[in-house]
Amino acid sequence: MSDTGVETQIKNTYDVRVRFNDCDPLRIVWHGVYITYFEDGREAFGRAHEISYLDVKANGFSTPIIKSVCEHKKPLAYGDIAIVETTFVDTPAAKMIFRYKIYNQHKELVCIGETIQVFVDDEGNMSLTLPKFFEDWKRKVGLL
Amino acid sequence: MSDTGVETQIKNTYDVRVRFNDCDPLRIVWHGVYITYFEDGREAFGRAHEISYLDVKANGFSTPIIKSVCEHKKPLAYGDIAIVETTFVDTPAAKMIFRYKIYNQHKELVCIGETIQVFVDDEGNMSLTLPKFFEDWKRKVGLL
Amino acid sequence: MSDTGVETQIKNTYDVRVRFNDCDPLRIVWHGVYITYFEDGREAFGRAHEISYLDVKANGFSTPIIKSVCEHKKPLAYGDIAIVETTFVDTPAAKMIFRYKIYNQHKELVCIGETIQVFVDDEGNMSLTLPKFFEDWKRKVGLL
Amino acid sequence: MSDTGVETQIKNTYDVRVRFNDCDPLRIVWHGVYITYFEDGREAFGRAHEISYLDVKANGFSTPIIKSVCEHKKPLAYGDIAIVETTFVDTPAAKMIFRYKIYNQHKELVCIGETIQVFVDDEGNMSLTLPKFFEDWKRKVGLL
Repeated sequence: MSDTGVETQIKNTYDVRVRFNDCDPLRIVWHGVYITYFEDGREAFGRAHEISYLDVKANGFSTPIIKSVCEHKKPLAYGDIAIVETTFVDTPAAKMIFRYKIYNQHKELVCIGETIQVFVDDEGNMSLTLPKFFEDWKRKVGLL
Repeated sequence: MSDTGVETQIKNTYDVRVRFNDCDPLRIVWHGVYITYFEDGREAFGRAHEISYLDVKANGFSTPIIKSVCEHKKPLAYGDIAIVETTFVDTPAAKMIFRYKIYNQHKELVCIGETIQVFVDDEGNMSLTLPKFFEDWKRKVGLL
Repeated sequence: MSDTGVETQIKNTYDVRVRFNDCDPLRIVWHGVYITYFEDGREAFGRAHEISYLDVKANGFSTPIIKSVCEHKKPLAYGDIAIVETTFVDTPAAKMIFRYKIYNQHKELVCIGETIQVFVDDEGNMSLTLPKFFEDWKRKVGLL
Repeated sequence: MSDTGVETQIKNTYDVRVRFNDCDPLRIVWHGVYITYFEDGREAFGRAHEISYLDVKANGFSTPIIKSVCEHKKPLAYGDIAIVETTFVDTPAAKMIFRYKIYNQHKELVCIGETIQVFVDDEGNMSLTLPKFFEDWKRKVGLL
């Protein structure tokens, strides 16, 4: 995973039911679908901590993903539940970093991952410094 | 398929390679993926006949789908090519109707379908009459 | 919708949270995604009434979709909840027919649809008569 | 990208047309879709060099992905063509490693990535040594 950034205790857990069409001819969840599960986890984190896509948008920003990493430990199949644990990773850079651990319903680790996002304003410019709303958010959750 | 509308000779054929993750645990293309193949066919038609999503958008309209019908005759599997034949269906109504026939690489019919679209302007209002650009297009292709 | 078949009172309601990547550049749920929502509803019905994909498979059958119809009344956007009401439609034919009504969180009807499935045994043969397990199921829910 | 492995000159280039529903409400290709483009590139490489999913399967193996990395440099939008350059990365380990560079139609780099696959036989056991068919393949392409 990324070299920079410190895992915090600010976490969220979200259950995703594996869809039939998440699974491929090998009868396991197709590897690219985990990026969707990460987004499910990250948005559930965002709703719980008021930093979701819609919160960010209301502040005049979007946060495009610039990097994703996904490592698979075990497969998931149709009928399984993906339990997505999303952890906020603190960094002084103008980035949002999340790490993910996905477990199956038997609490076995199936996947780990990371995403890195940057802040882009409504004119399409990437922020080199923390946007004020995000500084406020970090203060609110005790990281500043 | 729809009661109204007359199939024209204005057609287009487009090949789509079946993706691994188009296929489900039954090892056939998941039924919902055919809606994507229809869109591939319709957009290839649009590029060939200058009535694609981007052409429509340049004229200040979008054309949301209001109805899709999809009937399956045979399955497609990984390794197959879906040959999508898209036919314009003429109607006096302010709608765009397309019919689809999908064949496999052995020229066997695997799927038929239809989509109906309406015209919505940039303010979000649905057109009850043919937009001028579409009237012009129908004239150009010999339907007016 | 289909000519044959009688809507029963055997129903199920299931909530689906609209995903960011369910939405297209028009900022509404892309029309093909509703086929996934129908499957979510149908599988929730199946889990509630013991006739899910996995139940059917345990009886040596699969139930491929042979027809889907989807009609759109209103768009859904990111942040919305799709409330999928799935109704079993009774028919004497060797088919499973479901009708769908999707509402948004304000209880407005956004979409209606129907799917028709046939029974295929483990050797790949389509059943022309009701498989015994399905006859048993219909008896159990009071339809035989 | 991965520490191990040496980029070879064994490459393939494959064009993918961006689909409307590859794009999200930000009007750019949703980040998770690049995993599909990587697979398109890898399978085109496989067809060109006789090491595709179906070739591997014919030899009694599957090659599940155990890690994906995806880094975004620029967005792609509807109307763009993704030009996927797939390079085989040589390693003595019982793994298949590919690196990807995706360019737009203006030859600008939009994305880089890597996938790592392992060999699993038909009984579900992971190979700790190179399967014979893969050794033969490496010999054929001049890597052994």
